[in-house]
Amino acid sequence: MCEYEALLALEYAATRLRINSIKATNASKSGHPTSCASIAEIMAVLFLKEMRFKPKDPRNPSSDRFVLSKGHAAPVLYAAWAEVGLLSESDLLTLRKLNSDLEGHPTPRLSFVDVATGSLGQGLSNAAGMAYVGKYIDQATYRVYCVVGDGESAEGNIWEALAFSSYYKLDNLVMILDVNRLGQSQPTSLQHDLETYRKRVEAFGWHAQVIDGHDIGAILSAFATARSVKGKPAALICKTYKGAGFPEIENEEDWHGKPLGSKSADVLQHLEAKLRVGPAGDVADTKGRLVPPVPKDDCKPTKLIGCVALPSPPHYKLGEQVATRLAYGNALARLGETCDRVIGLDGDTKNSTFSIKLMEAKPDQFIECFIAEQNLVGIGIGCAVRQRTIPFVSTFAAFLTRAFDQIRMGAVSQTNCNFVGSHAGVSIGEDGPSQMALEDIAMFRTIMGSTVFYPSDAVATERAVELAANTLGICFIRTGRPNCPVIYKSDEHFAVGHGKVVRTSGSTTDQLTIVAAGVTLFEALKAADLLAAENIQVRIIDPFTIKPIDVELLKTAVQETCDQVVTVEDHAPEGGIGDAVDGALSQAGVNHVVHRLAVCEVPRSGTPSELMHKYRIDANAIFLTVKNIMAKH
Amino acid sequence: MCEYEALLALEYAATRLRINSIKATNASKSGHPTSCASIAEIMAVLFLKEMRFKPKDPRNPSSDRFVLSKGHAAPVLYAAWAEVGLLSESDLLTLRKLNSDLEGHPTPRLSFVDVATGSLGQGLSNAAGMAYVGKYIDQATYRVYCVVGDGESAEGNIWEALAFSSYYKLDNLVMILDVNRLGQSQPTSLQHDLETYRKRVEAFGWHAQVIDGHDIGAILSAFATARSVKGKPAALICKTYKGAGFPEIENEEDWHGKPLGSKSADVLQHLEAKLRVGPAGDVADTKGRLVPPVPKDDCKPTKLIGCVALPSPPHYKLGEQVATRLAYGNALARLGETCDRVIGLDGDTKNSTFSIKLMEAKPDQFIECFIAEQNLVGIGIGCAVRQRTIPFVSTFAAFLTRAFDQIRMGAVSQTNCNFVGSHAGVSIGEDGPSQMALEDIAMFRTIMGSTVFYPSDAVATERAVELAANTLGICFIRTGRPNCPVIYKSDEHFAVGHGKVVRTSGSTTDQLTIVAAGVTLFEALKAADLLAAENIQVRIIDPFTIKPIDVELLKTAVQETCDQVVTVEDHAPEGGIGDAVDGALSQAGVNHVVHRLAVCEVPRSGTPSELMHKYRIDANAIFLTVKNIMAKH
Repeated sequence: MCEYEALLALEYAATRLRINSIKATNASKSGHPTSCASIAEIMAVLFLKEMRFKPKDPRNPSSDRFVLSKGHAAPVLYAAWAEVGLLSESDLLTLRKLNSDLEGHPTPRLSFVDVATGSLGQGLSNAAGMAYVGKYIDQATYRVYCVVGDGESAEGNIWEALAFSSYYKLDNLVMILDVNRLGQSQPTSLQHDLETYRKRVEAFGWHAQVIDGHDIGAILSAFATARSVKGKPAALICKTYKGAGFPEIENEEDWHGKPLGSKSADVLQHLEAKLRVGPAGDVADTKGRLVPPVPKDDCKPTKLIGCVALPSPPHYKLGEQVATRLAYGNALARLGETCDRVIGLDGDTKNSTFSIKLMEAKPDQFIECFIAEQNLVGIGIGCAVRQRTIPFVSTFAAFLTRAFDQIRMGAVSQTNCNFVGSHAGVSIGEDGPSQMALEDIAMFRTIMGSTVFYPSDAVATERAVELAANTLGICFIRTGRPNCPVIYKSDEHFAVGHGKVVRTSGSTTDQLTIVAAGVTLFEALKAADLLAAENIQVRIIDPFTIKPIDVELLKTAVQETCDQVVTVEDHAPEGGIGDAVDGALSQAGVNHVVHRLAVCEVPRSGTPSELMHKYRIDANAIFLTVKNIMAKH
Repeated sequence: MCEYEALLALEYAATRLRINSIKATNASKSGHPTSCASIAEIMAVLFLKEMRFKPKDPRNPSSDRFVLSKGHAAPVLYAAWAEVGLLSESDLLTLRKLNSDLEGHPTPRLSFVDVATGSLGQGLSNAAGMAYVGKYIDQATYRVYCVVGDGESAEGNIWEALAFSSYYKLDNLVMILDVNRLGQSQPTSLQHDLETYRKRVEAFGWHAQVIDGHDIGAILSAFATARSVKGKPAALICKTYKGAGFPEIENEEDWHGKPLGSKSADVLQHLEAKLRVGPAGDVADTKGRLVPPVPKDDCKPTKLIGCVALPSPPHYKLGEQVATRLAYGNALARLGETCDRVIGLDGDTKNSTFSIKLMEAKPDQFIECFIAEQNLVGIGIGCAVRQRTIPFVSTFAAFLTRAFDQIRMGAVSQTNCNFVGSHAGVSIGEDGPSQMALEDIAMFRTIMGSTVFYPSDAVATERAVELAANTLGICFIRTGRPNCPVIYKSDEHFAVGHGKVVRTSGSTTDQLTIVAAGVTLFEALKAADLLAAENIQVRIIDPFTIKPIDVELLKTAVQETCDQVVTVEDHAPEGGIGDAVDGALSQAGVNHVVHRLAVCEVPRSGTPSELMHKYRIDANAIFLTVKNIMAKH
């Protein structure tokens, strides 16, 4: 095919993308055809000329990656995969139907989607994570392309990703910024001020080209230039029109997220006319004449989850004082030494979370992401794509709340990324409430399919790291700042959903059950001694995982100890251990009452022990609470 | 005092700020003296020369505002307030002690702190919110100053705030960027590349000056220039050194967040020598010779919370189909018409959340924040400061998760900002999981002191808006996308913590209690009809607020209906209504079992009714669940 024919074929393809986007959204009676139209030419060039991939093997590790950050343009993505033959045109008409994987926004239920998008401003971080892995870990030739909307470029996450990508010289990453001028409810703040976009993107260290996003020749040429850029990522800043090619709709407001309705027939007729050629007006049969270039097969498949193990059991002495955050660092470094695809990411807290242990042991397996938690999480999710790595993302647990939306979307993305939050609760002491995680268990419990570890000592922490590495879905490990004694032997076995009875006087003599984890477990043990001195015997359970929580262990305990449970946690009273235990006992169908000891107000600065006392999660509070319950029952 | 004397006095003040930062962190044995040192000259100039305020009346509405976004430099802030006489030097030595309000990071427990900082990258949004109010709502001459650290400038939130501030031409806002080169665990990504900072800040629409941040003359001059800038906000990009003025520590790594320890005596001796003058080496007694300029009294105090009311009762017909999101818009507009300090903020979803109703009615009371939820929330919190306004911040509830950290910090800030999240749950239908809020109740329940409204019809929603406006602390109102029937009369009374029995056959004949809200309440009502046909009578409770939840109503219900409760919610099973009810019954000390119906996996696209059926929160699922429970009991 000559160059002219190829250009023409791409024009036809762009027109078909528009037509199919209209037809699909008509069929679903909802969706965003005008947001599809602004990138029709861009998508045609990307999928038929620029990207190197195998249409029938969408997750081939050597293929270029594509992320549609502006996920609401999903119909044009699906139409592009119909252009390359993976989907049929009739598939496209199942858009947004219950039994179709062609959802309103792309998810990895589709083989050609690596990360779910739809919550805006996240895709570029995911793409940058993939590009980082491609350049530095896979050291393969695949490239990563990300289409970003102008509206979503208001999200700070985008600028975090831009800064990250230039810092790490990701010259295998291309951002296509679709400046179609119109947001959902009004024009964007910059409208068609392309030069300001250029200045911003260049100031963030990218190569930038401003082009007409509907000019196929210009797009082709810009991608060629982008490919030649070395040492920095490249951006195509595309002037486009929302609803481009739709007469009376193009560049007009109030057309966001709406099928074309009564305008549909006229617009389709207009577009279909563009496909007709020759005097007889035959439909140009160009589909299938352009095929994407094949990738270089320089990246091997990986299978990681379920395959990594600590090189030896944890090695601590019983009673030794070790913070769980330190044990996390130790375990991560040890795991990283056995598997070069176990990686650590941190947001300039590595000397507090102790992820620095991995950096010191295996510097190539560590990514410093600076103080930008949304991007930190997005990069982690990008790194986990196609099981290229097993990422552990760490920062203070409080600051993971910064990325709740990204973590939530990670679940939709079916990510296996692991998260580790240190500095849990008031037991961090003097730094005060801004640094204290009191909502993290609640946050991670709500994440669909998540596993929430709350290991209480160093041995449990090391096993939590090993288990998280091998567990599908999002895992969270909560670690603490203070030193705590080692209570488990090195050969203790841990499993997800299995708690431990760490103190009991026997199944018939325990009078009440206490559930506690981390710092509060040791307070519970102290309280048990005080209670025993008054002839009150308590059972103490260390749950190990808060989700799933050990329903059977709790059920047995509560049935053997008068239906009363005390939970003690360095966390808010909502969403944490108390709620988890209450829920588990309800699930088990046993009558119960859970007495919560938790941090019930905004805390303040002080020493850890002062604060645990003030907020009533220390041994004294447990002792008094149990006495009070026993007096009533 | 001549100009030379004033300069000298500022130099002495800067030295005292350093000395006091060292002494305070020595006394507390923790804290960040080197982060204080880099801004000593900046703080001296700000507090003794540039800012116009009344030291003995820190929250005077006419005074300039100050936000220390890099909150870990708190000791130098406290030392500055000692310079102006509000605190004594002995107060400073109580830093981080349990009984002192001089916490590790600033909080509004101190009269001179408007917003808590310490989770980085948020202060500029708060400052911009205050500046917006100053310029457009108060129309007063006070100015707003914000010190931002270079490390935290990696946070996307900062760039959202920069874009917002230039878009709204906030020429009463000054950012002082402290480029001290060093983060917590390593140098920042840009180190001392001042020109790149300048390019970025200018590209984001600000006036920018790069200066030596330790040169008092340069700082004075730059502030004067900043004051003359019209139509855009101004930035001072200051080259500084971490630990500046501390021999052997200045500009060195590994000194983040550490008192000076063994180096302390030498450093203090070095600094104290700088205060000695004349041949006898007397300590220069310059303290108190400089006093901050007085503000122009052009802004009156306001008292808003507790003082606003809907102009008339909600006006809907029983049975009328109204989405609660629409009722929110109606109520907000009506409230805004009665009080010109009720404002709405949205992130380009105003035509979906219906906050557009306020914009249409009272355009000056509406702030479009574009697609940048972190800044949206930070602006809202800034607008609420000193009760200048009653803000309502709205977007899809799912996207409020983007700002969990900002909302969490809002509680530490004692904010009265209100949040409204629309598009709750799978009942939004075809858009799919990225747009479905399934974690929002859990998130807001964990916020200390929060009130969580989940109104089920239009009347309840209007009253929720009115109550939220008058309630201290963070309020969240969850609204839904689909139309639902109006079930409450216009004169129905609603109160925080008071639920409604919407169906009962009598206290002795109800066999089981169902708690549901929003779309699921109507499913419960349908199920009750099906059950009644099989002679099973259920009580249905609409909780109205999920936090606080009506413990007494639930206790009575569960005691009258066999200890069994069914909760039904368009939310994840964790942290929502189920957990709240379980917790309330535990709190009441009554034995109970809560059967949760909730969305238990990542949902997908489909119609609302298909999805409610698939995820088992519809009438059919409720019917079957109740039948199953009744068969067992």
